[in-house]
Amino acid sequence: MKLVVVGAAGRMGKTLIKLISETEGLVLHAAVERAGSAALGQDAGELAGVPKLGVAVTDDPLAAFVHADGVIDFTTPASTVEFAALAAQARIVHVIGTTGCLPEHEEKIDAAARHARVVKSGNMSLGVNLLSVLIKQAAQALDAAGWDIEVLEMHHKHKVDAPSGTALLLGEAAAEGRGISLADHSVRVRDGHTGPREEGSIGFATLRGGSVIGEHSVLFASEGEMVTLSHSATDRSLFARGALKAAIWARDQKPGRYTMLDVLGLNSTP
Amino acid sequence: MKLVVVGAAGRMGKTLIKLISETEGLVLHAAVERAGSAALGQDAGELAGVPKLGVAVTDDPLAAFVHADGVIDFTTPASTVEFAALAAQARIVHVIGTTGCLPEHEEKIDAAARHARVVKSGNMSLGVNLLSVLIKQAAQALDAAGWDIEVLEMHHKHKVDAPSGTALLLGEAAAEGRGISLADHSVRVRDGHTGPREEGSIGFATLRGGSVIGEHSVLFASEGEMVTLSHSATDRSLFARGALKAAIWARDQKPGRYTMLDVLGLNSTP
Amino acid sequence: MKLVVVGAAGRMGKTLIKLISETEGLVLHAAVERAGSAALGQDAGELAGVPKLGVAVTDDPLAAFVHADGVIDFTTPASTVEFAALAAQARIVHVIGTTGCLPEHEEKIDAAARHARVVKSGNMSLGVNLLSVLIKQAAQALDAAGWDIEVLEMHHKHKVDAPSGTALLLGEAAAEGRGISLADHSVRVRDGHTGPREEGSIGFATLRGGSVIGEHSVLFASEGEMVTLSHSATDRSLFARGALKAAIWARDQKPGRYTMLDVLGLNSTP
Amino acid sequence: MKLVVVGAAGRMGKTLIKLISETEGLVLHAAVERAGSAALGQDAGELAGVPKLGVAVTDDPLAAFVHADGVIDFTTPASTVEFAALAAQARIVHVIGTTGCLPEHEEKIDAAARHARVVKSGNMSLGVNLLSVLIKQAAQALDAAGWDIEVLEMHHKHKVDAPSGTALLLGEAAAEGRGISLADHSVRVRDGHTGPREEGSIGFATLRGGSVIGEHSVLFASEGEMVTLSHSATDRSLFARGALKAAIWARDQKPGRYTMLDVLGLNSTP
Repeated sequence: MKLVVVGAAGRMGKTLIKLISETEGLVLHAAVERAGSAALGQDAGELAGVPKLGVAVTDDPLAAFVHADGVIDFTTPASTVEFAALAAQARIVHVIGTTGCLPEHEEKIDAAARHARVVKSGNMSLGVNLLSVLIKQAAQALDAAGWDIEVLEMHHKHKVDAPSGTALLLGEAAAEGRGISLADHSVRVRDGHTGPREEGSIGFATLRGGSVIGEHSVLFASEGEMVTLSHSATDRSLFARGALKAAIWARDQKPGRYTMLDVLGLNSTP
Repeated sequence: MKLVVVGAAGRMGKTLIKLISETEGLVLHAAVERAGSAALGQDAGELAGVPKLGVAVTDDPLAAFVHADGVIDFTTPASTVEFAALAAQARIVHVIGTTGCLPEHEEKIDAAARHARVVKSGNMSLGVNLLSVLIKQAAQALDAAGWDIEVLEMHHKHKVDAPSGTALLLGEAAAEGRGISLADHSVRVRDGHTGPREEGSIGFATLRGGSVIGEHSVLFASEGEMVTLSHSATDRSLFARGALKAAIWARDQKPGRYTMLDVLGLNSTP
Repeated sequence: MKLVVVGAAGRMGKTLIKLISETEGLVLHAAVERAGSAALGQDAGELAGVPKLGVAVTDDPLAAFVHADGVIDFTTPASTVEFAALAAQARIVHVIGTTGCLPEHEEKIDAAARHARVVKSGNMSLGVNLLSVLIKQAAQALDAAGWDIEVLEMHHKHKVDAPSGTALLLGEAAAEGRGISLADHSVRVRDGHTGPREEGSIGFATLRGGSVIGEHSVLFASEGEMVTLSHSATDRSLFARGALKAAIWARDQKPGRYTMLDVLGLNSTP
Repeated sequence: MKLVVVGAAGRMGKTLIKLISETEGLVLHAAVERAGSAALGQDAGELAGVPKLGVAVTDDPLAAFVHADGVIDFTTPASTVEFAALAAQARIVHVIGTTGCLPEHEEKIDAAARHARVVKSGNMSLGVNLLSVLIKQAAQALDAAGWDIEVLEMHHKHKVDAPSGTALLLGEAAAEGRGISLADHSVRVRDGHTGPREEGSIGFATLRGGSVIGEHSVLFASEGEMVTLSHSATDRSLFARGALKAAIWARDQKPGRYTMLDVLGLNSTP
């Protein structure tokens, strides 16, 4: 399967190039960076710290996509929307790990998904996606009257937003299980005189420090007992591996929009 | 609902008497201890540290059961088998929290369940039963080739057996999810030169100390990520409350054998 | 040792009465409630759910203190200040577990400590006090340039303030170890775009739910490693037992102001 | 500082070569492998996945040590004893991370330390060494009559021994704090009918799975409370960095035998 990596010079881009070069059945077809990038013209293998791959980094995605089978994209919402349009034209796979997309971006991705096979997810790991399924079920089984839901996450000191996208994704899963809207029930700050906890709310707490790649826990606390469902990521390549798995899976699907739950066979809704 | 507590003078018996006396809709009908117990003749309420209930502790289960609606039983396998026969005769509910039953005991309980409504479980808490369902699913979704399952438990310093019955119950759930036999795949001791971990095995580890009521975790560990599903019990009355919930539920069922999964609506198999 | 319990009808008051009645060498001398309390005149033992103690609840602390050896006080800052003055007059022991005292209250307690033996602490458990000593040392040994400090706490859903007094006490210990002011370096809220973590800051995160009595963790996170120092309380009587231990210890001390670190022999500063 | 890496082709050897090449003030002076190794003659930089360093791997430690300032050694007890003799002859620094040394090996290392500056430790991370100091103190402060000590560790599925060397090091610290012998008080297996926990014992529990680099917790469990002191390693280079720090520190010391506690300034005993 011939894959294009966009955002090739970024941390995730390099990890993807390295992994593709090491995975049987996958070939790096092209590596794309934005115009003006210092990486343009460089060999993608060298860029990624592996032997030369004979693929020079380019700023022309159109040419890059035309004979490819798929694109892996951990970039920005604006770029992702452009890549989605080109992937639709080329009728190929588009795996999107980009976060922070607004409704206007999502609409364009939806449009592209009429022709492309799009897989988009806030977290590409098997563990987190399975956890979201289990959390939804737990939230469904445990009555809001007796069970309080809290989401805790920890990330490295460089992370600039809180709570993490994955914490929100897990909170969404809990809200779905309860049949409520997360936005209306989430408590994202507690400081000073807070009053007692409101029944049915979903609390978030954030820790930052060191080099932690990603720790997430969802707690269901009741009178005399607590259920905790947690995920710990200790290797960044986890997410790159998930994206490649998604690309391989999507090749055999009809055009449309999918999530990692579909890729992993965890989606129970038809 | 008129309930009989057997093993009335034990720690769980007293907790049950207290809870029944405090729960609307439930009445303590009789309190049974074995012949020779110092508690015989005492008022069950006083025994349990609540106001007098006008029920003297008796050693005659036959008379105790005859006009009752249900029996709550956290005793020993031998006693439980006797009580099951009497409950079947009286065609009432029999909630069994007794642990350590052998196949010969189970057979007799099965026979009794033709006439009694039997609910039997190794752990009566909602949290643990839900956890067992989630663990089974996780074990099904996470391939043995890449995911190692470990069960960790901690209990107070007085506990005399290891691993705990609940740890084994959770290990069973994992084994079921994998479609394997726990007995053939469990690793219960690691010390000295162990060699590398065997693929597909389910490891157990035990901590003992202080007054810990019950902590259980099932870990699914993979390359670069880990999913952990945990339960923590901090109040012994949790298990008594679960048993009463089971009794109330079972009253409206047909004779037969049930588990807490049925009581809690967590049983997906018809 | 003859002890007075003030705030006798509160949850902690009752626990103290019960524990005193069960502890050899301790006698309940008086039980004080505020004027107008429904508990006035009641037997303190019955109030606490133990056999009668022959001590009627009174609203006259002056009479209660005069022949006593010590007072145990988990009330409010305003009441504590009054009790401190009376304890000073009576030249007895005053154990203070009251939280939320302002500088003006502290001054009056200091004044009382010229004649009374005052032990005041935000947390009366051995574990938390030991932890604060270890945290101070760890913060001293681990350079702010490479190690990020975070404080996490969880309490039951009824708790009305955040972070907990104990979380702040542990944060203070970390700040002391670093030789910095907690007020200047604490980060108590993270939500939305936070930017990267500021070096040398001490972060707080709060979870609320169920019946959790008190969980506290201080994390020291660095590049590739993390040290976590935690305390878990699972029994409210822990704090009452600590207060009684403090009273017994203080009887043999000179008038002055002490903390649980002194009581527990954990205070290294002369 | 001119450093020799012995065991250059091993996982730790390569990590050391890489780190030395990236650290200002350090120079790779020689890289040693045993006779017959396939790596002999190769450039050490290429071996470690970094640019060429102009240092060919050799099997002659004598020549390698003679003009060096220090040796970093994560090999086997037998090799370490040989290297210690040569380091003593050359009067240089010898940092030893080798585990599994028997008393006979230790004696020879002691002898070498009359002329060499030897730093030897079972774990080179700052976090673990600090933790061992805190554990010793906690064990000293918390009476065996009321506090039960348990050591829990988790490592990747390839680890062949249990408990880990670091778990034993932390257990030793606890035993020292208690003034007891670990060998006489450790409980390393619990399975089946164990009976109640023996007062004063130190329990060990082991988890294995996935790619976990090293998780260690020491629990102090009491009636109603628990103190937990933990360390988590998420980056293997942690230990290599610690070894280099030890080498730099040892250069300015007198000949003798030191531990990481000395290097890190955590050793309170003169």
